[in-house]
Amino acid sequence: MNKNGCLYLIPNTIGNNQIDENIPISVKTIIENLNHFIVENEKVARKYIKLVSPNKSQKEITLYRLNKNTSLIELDSYLNICFKGESIGLISDAGCPGIADPGALIVSKAHDLKIKIKPLIGPSSVLLALMASGMNGQNFAFNGYLPINKTDRDKTIKLLEKNH
Amino acid sequence: MNKNGCLYLIPNTIGNNQIDENIPISVKTIIENLNHFIVENEKVARKYIKLVSPNKSQKEITLYRLNKNTSLIELDSYLNICFKGESIGLISDAGCPGIADPGALIVSKAHDLKIKIKPLIGPSSVLLALMASGMNGQNFAFNGYLPINKTDRDKTIKLLEKNH
Repeated sequence: MNKNGCLYLIPNTIGNNQIDENIPISVKTIIENLNHFIVENEKVARKYIKLVSPNKSQKEITLYRLNKNTSLIELDSYLNICFKGESIGLISDAGCPGIADPGALIVSKAHDLKIKIKPLIGPSSVLLALMASGMNGQNFAFNGYLPINKTDRDKTIKLLEKNH
Repeated sequence: MNKNGCLYLIPNTIGNNQIDENIPISVKTIIENLNHFIVENEKVARKYIKLVSPNKSQKEITLYRLNKNTSLIELDSYLNICFKGESIGLISDAGCPGIADPGALIVSKAHDLKIKIKPLIGPSSVLLALMASGMNGQNFAFNGYLPINKTDRDKTIKLLEKNH
């Protein structure tokens, strides 16, 4: 029997904060039972955890930051807790972790360490947009976020149109 | 005020049939309140509706079949009910409608008819696999189902590797 903890991939809300519209009850229960979370932004994560589980003591929660400024040494230490038998949750700032956010790095690390990974169900703007588009979902590509700068954005869109 | 009904895109379970692990409560409530559903397979759909809403009278439900054999004339009539003020749900045999299934056709039709489309949150094997892969989710492509025949499958995989 594997007594190590696992890595839960926990979706955050998008668009609205109605928990009962965004995630299944089982995801709420998992969040309530975890005390360790890898997060993009501490404030955003604490707000979400409070929303899901208002009675949970925020003092008992340990957060590990994962964003562009996280060093690889820090990253390496985040999953140590799993070898002490405790599970940890990865929460995105919005939507599903690992999809268009830096979370994939820690998931890859968990694979290396043979830690069990449990992706949970929740909202993904990419998927909901594709469903609602009426376009062919038999095969599709997500080309990532477009540049914020208008000139760069126009250039990228033209390039995507040319390559299609 | 728009008094027309809308088209709900309703995810089905995948892997296990635990409703509270697959869909948010609000999706359950929407299914309970609908009487018209566009489905791939009648038996699969009725089983799912019964699982979500055991007390719902199956006699009051009208199902409209959407699969490879559905004619375009049939398809055209499926959304008429929305102009009578009733909403309709599109249910996939598994996972999210419109993603790797024939549902996109009716969503496209709803756009043409200016019927409001509401994609709901639930499981998608494509998305869960990508989240759990630890691979780059900043941009990705879903190339559709691989052929069942081994020779064809190997050929397709080689072609995908070459084009990547």
